[in-house]
Amino acid sequence: MAYELYYWPTIQGRGEFVRLALEEAGVPYVDVARGEEPEGGVPALMALLEGDSVPHPPFAPPVLKAGRLLIGQTAAILVFVGDRHGLAPKTESGRLWVHQIQLTIADLVTEVHDTHHPIASSLYYEDQKDEAARRAEDFRTARAGKYLGWFETILDRGTGPWLAGRSLTYADLSLFQVVDGLRWAFPTTMKRLERRLPRLVALHDRVADRPAIAAYLASERRIPFNQMGIFRRYPELDP
Amino acid sequence: MAYELYYWPTIQGRGEFVRLALEEAGVPYVDVARGEEPEGGVPALMALLEGDSVPHPPFAPPVLKAGRLLIGQTAAILVFVGDRHGLAPKTESGRLWVHQIQLTIADLVTEVHDTHHPIASSLYYEDQKDEAARRAEDFRTARAGKYLGWFETILDRGTGPWLAGRSLTYADLSLFQVVDGLRWAFPTTMKRLERRLPRLVALHDRVADRPAIAAYLASERRIPFNQMGIFRRYPELDP
Repeated sequence: MAYELYYWPTIQGRGEFVRLALEEAGVPYVDVARGEEPEGGVPALMALLEGDSVPHPPFAPPVLKAGRLLIGQTAAILVFVGDRHGLAPKTESGRLWVHQIQLTIADLVTEVHDTHHPIASSLYYEDQKDEAARRAEDFRTARAGKYLGWFETILDRGTGPWLAGRSLTYADLSLFQVVDGLRWAFPTTMKRLERRLPRLVALHDRVADRPAIAAYLASERRIPFNQMGIFRRYPELDP
Repeated sequence: MAYELYYWPTIQGRGEFVRLALEEAGVPYVDVARGEEPEGGVPALMALLEGDSVPHPPFAPPVLKAGRLLIGQTAAILVFVGDRHGLAPKTESGRLWVHQIQLTIADLVTEVHDTHHPIASSLYYEDQKDEAARRAEDFRTARAGKYLGWFETILDRGTGPWLAGRSLTYADLSLFQVVDGLRWAFPTTMKRLERRLPRLVALHDRVADRPAIAAYLASERRIPFNQMGIFRRYPELDP
């Protein structure tokens, strides 16, 4: 039975980290909220989040349904997909290391989101523009470089070419997405930072060249970046 | 050989979630940065974070050293400790569920931190007070209730008395810490919210009554809440 991914249908968002793993693994999956009602669409997603009888209700999407298993939290979903489909190391130390990297990516993603929503997710960007300008400045001048420099260091100290050595893992796919998203949201900043991040840029390109990923990126399954997701292009936040 | 915990010596912070798990498990550990130099103290922590030859350098503390293993990211450390010391389920579905809960706790903890530091961790609270007032208002009126209500729902739908059923896990210990911290930081808000959270309050009390936890909380190993950690008491943020 195909996996079912439950995520907002109009954005890449955190769901994209799961989509990339499923696409690379070549596993059949249904992107439920992008389907037709009544089986699909946003109502199907809401039923999962708000249903009274879901024994393990997720706090927020993305959620992966795999048979009777229902898994929420992006990083937990990737542990499951990684173990099942060869996108994680076999050793305990390797699995923990890749997960540690993924959790650090998750922290970065939260900080990216907060550059345009530092006060409240429930408010419009326009209602928190001044605060966003301050937070984005800190992100551009301190946080982005610190995170991306850490990934570069890992690649430098590792046995390459991937984050955890000779085999691609789900963390590599997620890091590709982060670089892609930051280029969309902070093109000026990334142009400056990337000069010192040759290994990270090479990793991004290697992921993009994977046959399954290249096919996915060229397909309609890949939702384009827009002004609703985590990575948004507000020129005033990246002068 | 005893585990070594590397974390800031003057705050509970994210290290506290690890301390609670190690204390409940009854595992010997050294809280390295609280020790004497040169073996301990903050320099020992900095050497780990900034050393040129650390093969798997952590992005930030807490970090747990277990023999040759070096693990960063609180939730990843708890996966390791939970598996080794009986603080996690044995089944894959149970392990994923507890981890999913823990990652949601981690998200909540980040939001708590951002109530007093919505612009930049590197700035003083006094330099972002206006923004903090706005963010804290959203936290008090929307986010805190949403998160805590989710934990209450889980406890209601589960087979109890713990989050994942009949056995205590690391997520229960972390949730105790969250309730304790929120009571310190947002006493007015918590007084209001707790009326509708009987299961969560009961879980907090059950954890506090565990012999190992009670002994730890009464010891000098438990750092008191203060104005430097994640949970801070600024009365103007909880009117």
